[in-house]
Formats: sequence, structure tokens, C-alpha cells
Amino acid sequence: MANSRYEYVKRFELADELLPEVWIVIRIDGRGFTKFSQAHEFEKPNDVRALCLMNASAKAVVEDQPDCIFAYGVSDEYSFVLRKSTSLYQRRASKLVSVFVSYFASNFVHRWPDFFPDKNLQYLPAFDGRAVCYPTAAILRDYLAWRQVDCHINNQYNACYWALVKSGATPAEAQATIKGTQADFKNELLFKRFGINYSTLPAIFRKGTSIYRKEVQKAPPAKKLRISGRGEKNTTASSPNND
Amino acid sequence: MANSRYEYVKRFELADELLPEVWIVIRIDGRGFTKFSQAHEFEKPNDVRALCLMNASAKAVVEDQPDCIFAYGVSDEYSFVLRKSTSLYQRRASKLVSVFVSYFASNFVHRWPDFFPDKNLQYLPAFDGRAVCYPTAAILRDYLAWRQVDCHINNQYNACYWALVKSGATPAEAQATIKGTQADFKNELLFKRFGINYSTLPAIFRKGTSIYRKEVQKAPPAKKLRISGRGEKNTTASSPNND
Amino acid sequence: MANSRYEYVKRFELADELLPEVWIVIRIDGRGFTKFSQAHEFEKPNDVRALCLMNASAKAVVEDQPDCIFAYGVSDEYSFVLRKSTSLYQRRASKLVSVFVSYFASNFVHRWPDFFPDKNLQYLPAFDGRAVCYPTAAILRDYLAWRQVDCHINNQYNACYWALVKSGATPAEAQATIKGTQADFKNELLFKRFGINYSTLPAIFRKGTSIYRKEVQKAPPAKKLRISGRGEKNTTASSPNND
Amino acid sequence: MANSRYEYVKRFELADELLPEVWIVIRIDGRGFTKFSQAHEFEKPNDVRALCLMNASAKAVVEDQPDCIFAYGVSDEYSFVLRKSTSLYQRRASKLVSVFVSYFASNFVHRWPDFFPDKNLQYLPAFDGRAVCYPTAAILRDYLAWRQVDCHINNQYNACYWALVKSGATPAEAQATIKGTQADFKNELLFKRFGINYSTLPAIFRKGTSIYRKEVQKAPPAKKLRISGRGEKNTTASSPNND
Ligand SMILES: Nc1nc2c(ncn2[C@H]2C[C@H](O)[C@@H](COP(=O)(O)OP(=O)(O)OP(=O)(O)O)O2)c(=O)[nH]1
Ligand SMILES: Nc1nc2c(ncn2[C@H]2C[C@H](O)[C@@H](COP(=O)(O)OP(=O)(O)OP(=O)(O)O)O2)c(=O)[nH]1
Ligand SMILES: Nc1nc2c(ncn2[C@H]2C[C@H](O)[C@@H](COP(=O)(O)OP(=O)(O)OP(=O)(O)O)O2)c(=O)[nH]1
Ligand SMILES: Nc1nc2c(ncn2[C@H]2C[C@H](O)[C@@H](COP(=O)(O)OP(=O)(O)OP(=O)(O)O)O2)c(=O)[nH]1
Ligand SMILES: O=P(O)(O)OP(=O)(O)OP(=O)(O)O
Ligand SMILES: O=P(O)(O)OP(=O)(O)OP(=O)(O)O
Ligand SMILES: O=P(O)(O)OP(=O)(O)OP(=O)(O)O
Ligand SMILES: O=P(O)(O)OP(=O)(O)OP(=O)(O)O
Ligand SMILES: [Mg+2]
Ligand SMILES: [Mg+2]
Ligand SMILES: [Mg+2]
Ligand SMILES: [Mg+2]
Ligand SMILES: [Mg+2]
Ligand SMILES: [Mg+2]
Ligand SMILES: [Mg+2]
Ligand SMILES: [Mg+2]
Ligand SMILES: [Mg+2]
Ligand SMILES: [Mg+2]
Ligand SMILES: [Mg+2]
Ligand SMILES: [Mg+2]
Repeated sequence: MANSRYEYVKRFELADELLPEVWIVIRIDGRGFTKFSQAHEFEKPNDVRALCLMNASAKAVVEDQPDCIFAYGVSDEYSFVLRKSTSLYQRRASKLVSVFVSYFASNFVHRWPDFFPDKNLQYLPAFDGRAVCYPTAAILRDYLAWRQVDCHINNQYNACYWALVKSGATPAEAQATIKGTQADFKNELLFKRFGINYSTLPAIFRKGTSIYRKEVQKAPPAKKLRISGRGEKNTTASSPNND
Repeated sequence: MANSRYEYVKRFELADELLPEVWIVIRIDGRGFTKFSQAHEFEKPNDVRALCLMNASAKAVVEDQPDCIFAYGVSDEYSFVLRKSTSLYQRRASKLVSVFVSYFASNFVHRWPDFFPDKNLQYLPAFDGRAVCYPTAAILRDYLAWRQVDCHINNQYNACYWALVKSGATPAEAQATIKGTQADFKNELLFKRFGINYSTLPAIFRKGTSIYRKEVQKAPPAKKLRISGRGEKNTTASSPNND
Repeated sequence: MANSRYEYVKRFELADELLPEVWIVIRIDGRGFTKFSQAHEFEKPNDVRALCLMNASAKAVVEDQPDCIFAYGVSDEYSFVLRKSTSLYQRRASKLVSVFVSYFASNFVHRWPDFFPDKNLQYLPAFDGRAVCYPTAAILRDYLAWRQVDCHINNQYNACYWALVKSGATPAEAQATIKGTQADFKNELLFKRFGINYSTLPAIFRKGTSIYRKEVQKAPPAKKLRISGRGEKNTTASSPNND
Repeated sequence: MANSRYEYVKRFELADELLPEVWIVIRIDGRGFTKFSQAHEFEKPNDVRALCLMNASAKAVVEDQPDCIFAYGVSDEYSFVLRKSTSLYQRRASKLVSVFVSYFASNFVHRWPDFFPDKNLQYLPAFDGRAVCYPTAAILRDYLAWRQVDCHINNQYNACYWALVKSGATPAEAQATIKGTQADFKNELLFKRFGINYSTLPAIFRKGTSIYRKEVQKAPPAKKLRISGRGEKNTTASSPNND
């Protein structure tokens, strides 16, 4: 073929297959969402519209990918778990990451008006992505615990911070009040000073969101998706930890 | 920190830095665009709206990334060239590929209505992506030649195929007529039978599109972008090869 | 420092760490031992001196590396299993492979005269090496089974082949007789024609050699090494399979 | 085949091919040679026997590998440069590193008695190894300069250190005298106090050793090897830098 003279350049594409028989987690994260959340006036510390848009986009990704058996989201990030035995794209890391992250971004942009009907996109988002391998279910569970503890710690901190700031403290004062304090202190601060019972805040804020397939007895071809913690009335809020 | 118990899972993220001082090409490609182009009734063989949407999305990527010095697009794919010395994301492959491909997808979806005002997205696109290293300018040029020769060969084939089919041939007949023939034969077929002078078809179809920064004498802060071969009236169509 | 001008070249060394918490197998294999075994007139099909030299070299490697918990050898190859949790050389693949293979080679050359007292090295051996990760004990066991079944199949084939050749068949005739036959046929051939009961051939030929640490009750500092299948009188021949 | 049940374990071997068309440097380095040199009473700071053994082993490696076009050695390390276009072992990193390092070790052990006729090996050496890619001749040259400047700095430091210690200083005193001083100071120290003209010390100590193929006009089949800086009478001592 006339193209054969140049085809040698294909050899520069190096293999990037992931180890067989380990769990693959694809984690994506909004690029510069500190700025993006400000430019789009996200509510502080948690904007339920933003979280539901993340969830809707992630749900689309999971529905798109039969080998994705679980997803967990918090803030501007989402983790997608692929079954250990998946041979999706021959387990090529670049293929996996790029298809997941671009389909997520497509959904995020497309569904933006459903969640932010009054606010145009000021500029367009990007997401970084990576594929990480976890050899055992126990370590995979620790991975998810890592993300969820992160959610919890950040949320408790932010709850206090914004309660203080909204009640008149300067950012520096708010920070000084919370810095280095334990969970107990923060819970009491919220309760005593602001009448907030932390444990009754929406689960979607405290725990993040899990997406998993619901086993449906009589429906062999498709599996229904279930989202926990979405904060919607007709959805049971749940999460990997018991409430 | 309370999270420290789980932080060990971070160690499973393996380094994926690319070799320093080589050209990095990030190539993205529409997932399943054979079907996507049918579902959205792209004109055959080339839909100028689809190509211009690709170009607009790629231009946004290049504007977003100062270290991207050249981009070349054809069909449902785009190649982005990063300067040899770039330290963008420490040259981490996953970061580079994911940010480029997700920002591209965001733009593609967002700008869809500008190019397809009468047609809603039937479903959302995804793009695969990969990072490839090229050690020398000569090999990088061969890489771009590889993509452009591919454009040329496919386009010449498709021009004949669709001319035959549109004039009444069955797909099988059209294929049989063209299969294994040389460029000369195809040019003559187009000219003698359909009155088409191949070399006068729009450059955007025959050669693809290049995006590069135009050196602007007196404007140090920003560089203007220039798209060649976009097929728009006020833009000079050009390409790496002379016309 | 005066050297700092050039230190940037260090950045071209890319990370090659292996996934944490998976079994690491380092397999080494003699380079061109088809020729090496001829040049040194190894007995056919198995030379017990050669195998014992391999075993002695491997034992030295295991003794040298506390994190190597098992080794299995056959023909000109040896597999070394590192414990899942090892942080030896930060699990850097090149470091692991190079240190194991070079120490093995050092021993092989140094101990050559002990096993081949009458034969000088005609030229020096090299060994290739690789590191492979196995996520579970079950897959690791399958890996070892893979090597041992290979040992068995090759040995049965070679036993027949050399019995035929030694009894006067040409290589082509011997090959034609055995080709495509099953284990049963080969066993019968050996027994009926040559009076060889395959299952009574030395275990070291039929099964290869395993090296593992023997738990010694009252000796906390060091663990004794045990070699199975060495074919020496004062050593119990055993192997992963029961005899 | 009977083995096919287990053959799936082969898929866990991941590709590790190096980028085409870049220089490959394989650098090996003695494991724990601080201790090895003491255990074998190497002369301080430089033992010409040890260096010549390193050189002889490296020469054997270069002779063994036609695609190795240059080698540079200093102290307990050697760098082997492969031609850019080499397809040796399909450029697989593990194969390259393991074969080079094990053949080097074989030679080092085998030729030990030639260089240390009066001293038995107390224990056997191992060497680590790595493969590094360098995209241009200029960067490759900087790599070699990096190693050679390292040689120079260490040697000048060691020359002073051991002159001081041999003349009665304690290690701490010697260190305190030299620490943080410039090359000029060291040269003067050597000259004024010990009558040593640094630049007349053997080139093999000051500059390390280069191995390269000598173009021989009328001998097409083989190329002769030349070692510079070996300190032998019938060999011109030279080095990448002019003397
Ligand atoms: N106000 C508000 N901010 C949010 C919400 N969700 C996420 N964010 C903001 C808080 C953080 O500044 C940011 C997420 O933190 P990251 O560590 O991902 O940093 P960022 O995305 O800025 O940088 P990156 O590109 O990921 O390194 O997004 C929300 O619901 N409301
Ligand atoms: N009709 C029409 N089709 C187009 C146009 N641009 C691209 N396509 C179609 C033609 C090809 O079937 C397809 C691109 O070929 P690919 O090799 O990328 O295959 P595809 O995307 O189907 O699969 P992939 O997921 O990339 O492996 O997109 C266009 O302007 N008009
Ligand atoms: N006669 C004899 N030959 C042996 C013995 N052990 C191993 N060999 C020979 C038989 C095989 O030809 C060779 C091992 O096969 P390999 O697949 O490793 O091939 P070889 O080392 O030639 O090439 P390679 O560099 O590993 O690809 O070594 C032995 O005890 N006696
Ligand atoms: N006395 C003496 N020592 C030498 C000679 N050549 C090398 N050495 C010693 C000096 C250094 O302590 C050591 C080389 O330094 P390295 O940085 O390679 O350290 P070492 O091999 O101990 O550890 P490593 O396993 O490479 O990290 O070998 C020599 O000719 N004479
Ligand atoms: O997608 P193709 O068939 O044009 O060829 P490729 O992109 O090189 O193949 P892959 O997408 O599988 O890397
Ligand atoms: O982005 P951070 O700071 O939360 O931490 P990270 O994602 O582990 O860092 P990086 O994005 O650089 O991989
Ligand atoms: O071994 P060093 O300390 O000279 O430095 P290095 O070889 O770059 O370090 P490593 O052997 O750990 O790669
Ligand atoms: O060497 P072979 O043919 O037994 O098989 P292999 O070792 O898997 O092949 P390679 O040495 O090329 O990795
Ligand atoms: Mg991050
Ligand atoms: Mg972010
Ligand atoms: Mg984040
Ligand atoms: Mg493709
Ligand atoms: Mg495509
Ligand atoms: Mg394509
Ligand atoms: Mg092999
Ligand atoms: Mg072999
Ligand atoms: Mg072998
Ligand atoms: Mg080192
Ligand atoms: Mg060393
Ligand atoms: Mg050293």
C-alpha cells in the first residue's frame, strides 16, 4: 500500500496493557474545579446540582460499560471499578482511561442544562484520569474507604468552615478555629454554635455516592442501575458504610 | 490524619512518565464513528459540518494548551503535537491523554448545535486517546505524513465508492470496481465517468486540517491560532504538502 | 557541584516499579543452551551435573535473598518467587532481574569446576531474565504447574527420542516415531522396547527441582534451605506433586 | 497440548519494549562494592587489577554484542551504548539488561584469577543493571560526560583523602581538610604536600576507560576492539576528552 513507507511510525506506540486478573480502578477528577466551582457559583460547601450532574454522568458511563461493576463519587472525582477479568480494550490503560473520561465529559457538558438550568457554562471542563490496579478485594475495599474517608474529612471540615464564614468569620478566623481539631470538636462546634446535627446532613454530602448494578431476578439481558446517596426523594440513600 | 490507615493504596498508582526530550503526540479517535456518523446522517463520504466541528474542538484544545504546537486532523481523529521540552503534567501519559481527550469531548458536545443546528445528538460520543513519543523531527514528520497519506488514500477510495453508489451501483459492485486499483485509475474513473476532477475537491477532504500557531510580530503575550483547510471562505486552505 | 550541568540525564531513567502486593516471579533462562550443552557435551537428554550446577547456583541465590521464598528449576531455567510484600529494591524490575541473574551467573561460573571437574568452560554463559507479577496464590501455583508440566512433557519426549537415537534410529526416524503421540504411547514405547519404567527415572529429570526454606523450630535467626529432587543420596527427593 | 491448561499464565508477562530509534544505554554497577573492595583488599583509592578486570569483562560483553558500539567504565560500573537502530531482543528491556549483566558477571568471576592471582574470591559478586534511552547524540554525550565528570570528581577527592590518610591523618581529619574545597585547592594540596602532580596520575584513574570498535580498513567480517586508558604498556591511553 502507498502508506507502507510511513507505517514504521506505528511501532513507536508502546504497549500499555495492565496486569490480568486484578481489579482496575479508573479514577477521574475535574481539572481546576476550585476555579470552575467559583466561576459557576457552586453552593458552598456542597452544591447538590453539581453532585447530581457528576452522578448522572457517572451513571451514563456505568451504563455504557458492562464491565464496570461499581462506581464511587465525591466532590469533582469519580472512581470506576472494572471487574478483575475484564478484557475491555485488552486492558490497554490509555484506551480505558481515555474512553471513560471522554464519555464522562461528554455527558457532563450535555446534561449541564438539566442541572443548572439558569446558568450557562462559562467555559468547558476537562477531567484528568488514571487507571490503577488492585490485586485483592480487601485492598480494593481499602481504596474505596480511602476515598470515602477523604469525603468525610473534607466534608466535616467544610461544614464547619462555611458555617463560620457564613456567620461572619473571616476565612482566616474560620481556619484558625478548626485547624488541627478532631472530629468530636467539629461535631460539637456545628451542634452547639449552629444547631447543626452533622449526622443528619444529607448522606450525599457526608458519604459520597455509590453506583452499582441491581440484580434483577427475571431480566436476563439487562441489569438496572441503582444510585445511592443521590438525595432524591424516590431513591434510598445508602452507602458502603452503614448509616 | 484519620485517612492515613488507607493511604497505602496510593502506592498502587504506578509512574507513567514519558521519556524527556522527545516529541509527544496525543492522538484521539472517535469511538465507533462508523455508527455515530450513520446515526447522525453524516454526508458521504465527507461531512463538512462534522469536520468543522472536529476542527473547532481541536482548536479549543490547542488554545487551551500552550505547549501544543501543532495539530492535524482527518476523519474522526486528531493528533496533537507537544513540544519536545514540555513538562506538562510532568509528562505523565495518563494525565496528558485524559485532559486532552476530555476537553476535546467537552467541546465536541458543546459546539455540536453550532455545526448541526437541525440535528440533536442521538447519543453521546466518546474518544479513545494515546500518547506516542517521536525522537526526531524527521520521524515526527513521517508520523504526520502517515496520517495524511491515510487521509488521501481513504478519501480517494471513498470518493469513487460513493460516486458509484450514488449513481446506482450496489455497495458490492462499487467495491468490486475499485478494489486493488491504483490512484491513476481512480482519478480517471472520477473524471471520465463522473466529471469530477479529484484535485479540485476541497482541500479539507483531500488533505485534512492542520492547526498551528501563527507568529505575530508585536504581540508577545498571546499567539493567534490558524486553521488551514477548514473550507471556510475567509480562511486560506493550506496543508503540509503543497497543493 | 561540578557535575550538576550533566545531572539532567538522570531524568531519562524511567520508573519501573512493579505493582505492590502481588507475587513476583523472576525467571531466568540460559542463553543459547542448545549450543552450550553441545559445546560442553552435556549428557542426553539430561545431564545430572548440569542440573546440579543449576541447583547449586539457584540455592546460592535463594540464600542471598531472604525475600525469595521458593524457587523451581528445570533444564536451563529457574524461577524465583518473591514474597508478595517484598520491598526489595522498591520492587524495581530492572534492579530485581539484574541482581538475581548476575548473582546466578557468578555462581554458575564459579562452581562449574565442582560439577564438571574434567571439562573446562569453552565459553562463558549468559542468562536472560524477566520479572512477572502474579496476583493470587492460585495463579502462582498455576505458573509453577506450567513450568513443571513443561518439564514433564519435554522430559518424556526426550526420553523416547534419545532412547531411539541411542538404539540406532536416525534423528528423523526418532522424531517420526514420537510425533503427535500421547503420554501412554510414550510410556509403553519406553517400557516395551527399552525396558524403561518412566516413573522410576530420577525425580530430578521428571519433575524438576524445588528449593524452599525449611521451618526450623528453635532457630530464629536463620532458616535452612532444602533442595528437593537433587538426586543426591542424602537428600529426600520430593516435588510439588506427590511422587 | 497438555500444557495448554496453564498457558494462560504467560499473559501476565507484560511488554517492556524500549522506544525505537533512541540510543539505549545499559549501565551496570557492582552491588555493595564498598564492602566487596574491602573484603578483597582492593588498593586505595584505585586498584588497577580491579579496574582491568572490569575492563576485560566489559570488553568481552562488547565483543559478544555487535550492536554495542561504545562502552565506558569507571569504579564498579560500566555503561554500554547500543546503536539507535538496534533490534536486539526486540529492544525488550529485561532481556537486554539481563543478558548484558549476566555475561559481564560470568566474565568477572571467570577472569578473576587472571587479575588477582594471589587472592581467592571471598564471596561472589552481583551487579545491578538498567536500560536508559537517550534520544539524541548530544544528550548521549552529556550522559557519558556525566559519568566521566563523576569519575574525575571522585578520583580527585579520593586521591586527596587517601594521601592524607596514608600520611597519618585520621579519616575524620582527612575529610575535614577536603570537604567543600574546589578542584584548584585539591590539586595544590596534592602537589605541595605530597608532590603529586594530579594530571600525571594514570589516565585510567582520572578518566575511566572507553571501549570502542576500531575501523579496520581491509577486514570486512570482524571489527577489532580497542580499549583506551587501560594502563597497559602496549595500549595508547586515551579518552573522550583530549589528554
Ligand atoms: N463550592 C463547591 N466546590 C466544590 C464542589 N465540589 C467540588 N468543589 C471544589 C472544591 C475543591 O476546590 C475542588 C476539588 O478539589 P481538587 O483537589 O480536585 O482540586 P482542583 O480540581 O482545583 O485541581 P486539580 O486540577 O484536580 O488538581 O472542587 C461543590 O459542590 N461546591
Ligand atoms: N459519512 C461520514 N463518515 C465519516 C466521516 N468522518 C468519519 N466518518 C466515519 C468513517 C469511518 O467509518 C469512521 C472512522 O473510522 P475508524 O477507523 O475510526 O472506525 P470507528 O470510529 O468506527 O471505530 P473505532 O472505535 O475508532 O475503532 O468514521 C464523515 O465526514 N462522513
Ligand atoms: N543435553 C542436554 N541438554 C540440555 C540440558 N538442559 C538443557 N539442555 C538444552 C536443551 C535445550 O536445547 C536447551 C534449553 O532450551 P531453551 O528453550 O532454553 O533454548 P536455548 O537455551 O537454546 O535458547 P534461548 O536463548 O533460551 O532462547 O538447553 C541437559 O541436561 N542435557
Ligand atoms: N579501594 C577501592 N575501592 C573501589 C574501587 N573501585 C570501586 N571501589 C569501591 C568504592 C565505592 O565504595 C564502591 C562503588 O560505589 P557505589 O556507589 O557503586 O556503592 P556500592 O557498590 O557500595 O553500593 P551499590 O550496591 O552500588 O548501591 O566501590 C577500587 O579500585 N579500589
Ligand atoms: O483503530 P484502527 O484500526 O485504525 O487502528 P489503530 O487505531 O492503530 O488500532 P487501535 O485503536 O486498536 O490501537
Ligand atoms: O490531585 P490531588 O492533589 O488530590 O492528589 P493526586 O490526584 O493524587 O495528585 P495528582 O493529580 O498529581 O496525581
Ligand atoms: O547507586 P547510586 O547511589 O550511585 O545512584 P543510583 O545508581 O542513581 O541509584 P540507584 O542505584 O538506586 O538507581
Ligand atoms: O524462550 P522460549 O521460546 O521458551 O519462550 P519464551 O521464553 O516465552 O520466549 P522469550 O524468551 O522470547 O520471552
Ligand atoms: Mg489530582
Ligand atoms: Mg480536581
Ligand atoms: Mg478532586
Ligand atoms: Mg483505533
Ligand atoms: Mg474511530
Ligand atoms: Mg478513525
Ligand atoms: Mg526464552
Ligand atoms: Mg535457554
Ligand atoms: Mg530454557
Ligand atoms: Mg546505584
Ligand atoms: Mg556499586
Ligand atoms: Mg558504583
